[in-house]
Amino acid sequence: MPDRILLDYNNMVSPRLGGRGLDPARLAAAAARFRAIQAAVERQRAAGGIAFLQLPYETELVERIRAFADGLGQAFDTVVVLGIGGSALGTSALAQALLPPFWNERDAEARDYYPRLYVLDNIDPTTIGPFLDRLDLARTLFNVVSKSGATAETMAQFLIVRERLRRAFEEGDRGHLIFTTDPEKGVLRDLARAENIASLPIPPGVGGRFSVLSAVGLLPAALVGIPIERLLRGAREMDERCRSDVLEENPAGLFATLQYLAHLEAGASIHVLMPYSDRLYGIADWFRQLWAESLGKRLDRAGREVFRGPTPVKALGATDQHSQVQLYMEGPFDKTVTLLVPAEVPEDVAVPDLYPGTAAFGYLGGHTLAELLRTEAKATATALARHGRMNLTLELPALGPEAIGGLLMLFQIATVYAGEWYDVNAFDQPGVELGKELTGALLRRPGTEVPALDPPDRRWICE
Amino acid sequence: MPDRILLDYNNMVSPRLGGRGLDPARLAAAAARFRAIQAAVERQRAAGGIAFLQLPYETELVERIRAFADGLGQAFDTVVVLGIGGSALGTSALAQALLPPFWNERDAEARDYYPRLYVLDNIDPTTIGPFLDRLDLARTLFNVVSKSGATAETMAQFLIVRERLRRAFEEGDRGHLIFTTDPEKGVLRDLARAENIASLPIPPGVGGRFSVLSAVGLLPAALVGIPIERLLRGAREMDERCRSDVLEENPAGLFATLQYLAHLEAGASIHVLMPYSDRLYGIADWFRQLWAESLGKRLDRAGREVFRGPTPVKALGATDQHSQVQLYMEGPFDKTVTLLVPAEVPEDVAVPDLYPGTAAFGYLGGHTLAELLRTEAKATATALARHGRMNLTLELPALGPEAIGGLLMLFQIATVYAGEWYDVNAFDQPGVELGKELTGALLRRPGTEVPALDPPDRRWICE
Repeated sequence: MPDRILLDYNNMVSPRLGGRGLDPARLAAAAARFRAIQAAVERQRAAGGIAFLQLPYETELVERIRAFADGLGQAFDTVVVLGIGGSALGTSALAQALLPPFWNERDAEARDYYPRLYVLDNIDPTTIGPFLDRLDLARTLFNVVSKSGATAETMAQFLIVRERLRRAFEEGDRGHLIFTTDPEKGVLRDLARAENIASLPIPPGVGGRFSVLSAVGLLPAALVGIPIERLLRGAREMDERCRSDVLEENPAGLFATLQYLAHLEAGASIHVLMPYSDRLYGIADWFRQLWAESLGKRLDRAGREVFRGPTPVKALGATDQHSQVQLYMEGPFDKTVTLLVPAEVPEDVAVPDLYPGTAAFGYLGGHTLAELLRTEAKATATALARHGRMNLTLELPALGPEAIGGLLMLFQIATVYAGEWYDVNAFDQPGVELGKELTGALLRRPGTEVPALDPPDRRWICE
Repeated sequence: MPDRILLDYNNMVSPRLGGRGLDPARLAAAAARFRAIQAAVERQRAAGGIAFLQLPYETELVERIRAFADGLGQAFDTVVVLGIGGSALGTSALAQALLPPFWNERDAEARDYYPRLYVLDNIDPTTIGPFLDRLDLARTLFNVVSKSGATAETMAQFLIVRERLRRAFEEGDRGHLIFTTDPEKGVLRDLARAENIASLPIPPGVGGRFSVLSAVGLLPAALVGIPIERLLRGAREMDERCRSDVLEENPAGLFATLQYLAHLEAGASIHVLMPYSDRLYGIADWFRQLWAESLGKRLDRAGREVFRGPTPVKALGATDQHSQVQLYMEGPFDKTVTLLVPAEVPEDVAVPDLYPGTAAFGYLGGHTLAELLRTEAKATATALARHGRMNLTLELPALGPEAIGGLLMLFQIATVYAGEWYDVNAFDQPGVELGKELTGALLRRPGTEVPALDPPDRRWICE
């Protein structure tokens, strides 16, 4: 059994795919170019230009979070994160990976007296209204997460929550709030100062989608009892592994390089991440933001119009074998599939041999669900290869915090490498501005003009 | 306010997209061809070749389901569906759309004494073990859903559950089971007959992904109090609308034709379905199977190798504005985005005007969440168009059962039309066989050979 994350890319290369897939010679050429990429990344790291790489080493922050979680945090029965995008996805991924399932449905004893955790990552009133009505505000802590303090969705949630808290507790409402925000600037920071509200910092250089190992993800994780020190240890170990400029030894480098080559040389513009584990599905969703928002860019770093970017897709094994795999096997050759498979799971369930003679399903008896799931992963990987479909397998040694910390780090570092390969700025997101501007204008935000929305042409409406 | 589903495709056509998008002349030509497609579909319907089209008219089945749900069904506090793919996705979509949120966390009174509903759509032991351990078996009904009775995942779940039921209730365990399966054939049917276990039929011609309006979806829906008669009424109304061979008046025809043209003429191989409603996200997941498994095919209907099929992607508004929209705005021109927007929601939440002077978010005060969400949908659609990105909006009049029934029918009928446009068999799924065969062989299923799995080449493993 491996004790660290393993990347098997046999099914990416042409010898295994009947001639489709990547030519090993091209991979060797890419390995040579990777040395320069790694050197460039190391230079940026040394200059402090890749802030998230420092997060696993922030021991002082961990102590602050630990102090808060062990102190005040324990007074609450429910923690509610108000955040969206990078302020929500990492926390949801950690909770799904590392908490027992159906956490919020368990009673306090079955949660070891840790609080319930909800991440409100949308502004749907049909969710938020009933949710808030059911909360016991006296036992609830709200963690408002926004670096700028200007995220419309999060601040709308905050206004609604704050009014309810004020009505319930008047001045005492502050004890139900903790902000995770910029250490210096922004409205939430100003409010925290003015009203003495608890707060934690998001380092200035750390963007939302790279913030899971900052206070953004670590505070809620610590509050529900996830051992964040072990998470960061795993992240540090992966970071160390990814200092190598030998492509074959650098898992993040390999992942990024294989995906890039598959896209540019073999037409795979769609990158499916398919965990064979319910616990890891949230990580596929988190990865989806990381990959899409970092690499989907109109301009390259020289300012030329390139309209780059693979499309990440989340899928779930074995479930999506009964939904998406038909397309993956027989559709266009426009995808890679990354299977994410834990080598060991913390508990297994035996399939009893109740109907030994039955042809249709008698053979299942005597196996276990973990065995069945792993077998299906292997069968799917092999079948994809035999259909000429590129796929790779990331095998986690276990579902513990070290492995999860390592996996999150692997994907984040891979994104930096992919930014180098695609030659785009992996850290900005200029394409979302127009939508925000139009929203502000339509809601008559001061300083924005009411935009001339084109009136719809009735010819193009079916009603 | 519209009283039926509206399709606005202004943002699909070139005049609105700065020259990108579909040429209205091509759309007119497609409308002419659509008459022949509609005639072909009507012929198949008349010959009984499209079985799911009959489902909304099966009043006798509704009475059987109603009788079961109002009788025996009410004895249970929890309903557990054992199923995967088409046996699970429709039920999950209905529950998410039409039950109040956090249904399973509510106490009996807040559920009007209807049962909790769980859909076990995977075989992850880390989910299933803790789930079964927490169940009160005496108050639980298991609905086993598999047309063939040979679905490995579902039958593994069944074996595990059946053993627990037997241990708890001996012969009385049958009262905790109801099978939804083929009316004549298969192991579940045989078991139902031999042991006198309750059962409901899946009509022979109805495949899993077209089964949501059969007993597969209707039984669990009825058990939790969803008015299935109103669901079917909405489906019938949509079916009637989709009998027209005038493309501009046929919403399913328009949806399929626009997606097909966008793919074949404008390179949009990725079809994003993006509800601006938490309640409708399950429908995006259900649609994903429908579209992928029906259209992703190696062979066309003449048996030529074509490797067809768009890739459906689910996204959620406003959440994914902070994750995927950067890519949708600035990445390759390889997508269409369908926004799914309810015109009215059953409840709204006001955003209080707590910090009126604050530039960053003061403007939000005085609006409501529904207003904000709808404004963001409109802003995103407009911004996409201004970036030259094809998008269309499906507006639902409300979130009630009629609208949901209509929407499900719209997408199912659109899939039939899309099968005609892509010239593939929309009703089979031959590409999943190899994976099943390999799984069976690896688990030593009688009658399968142990396959010669290629041993991995160590060179292509990073560990």
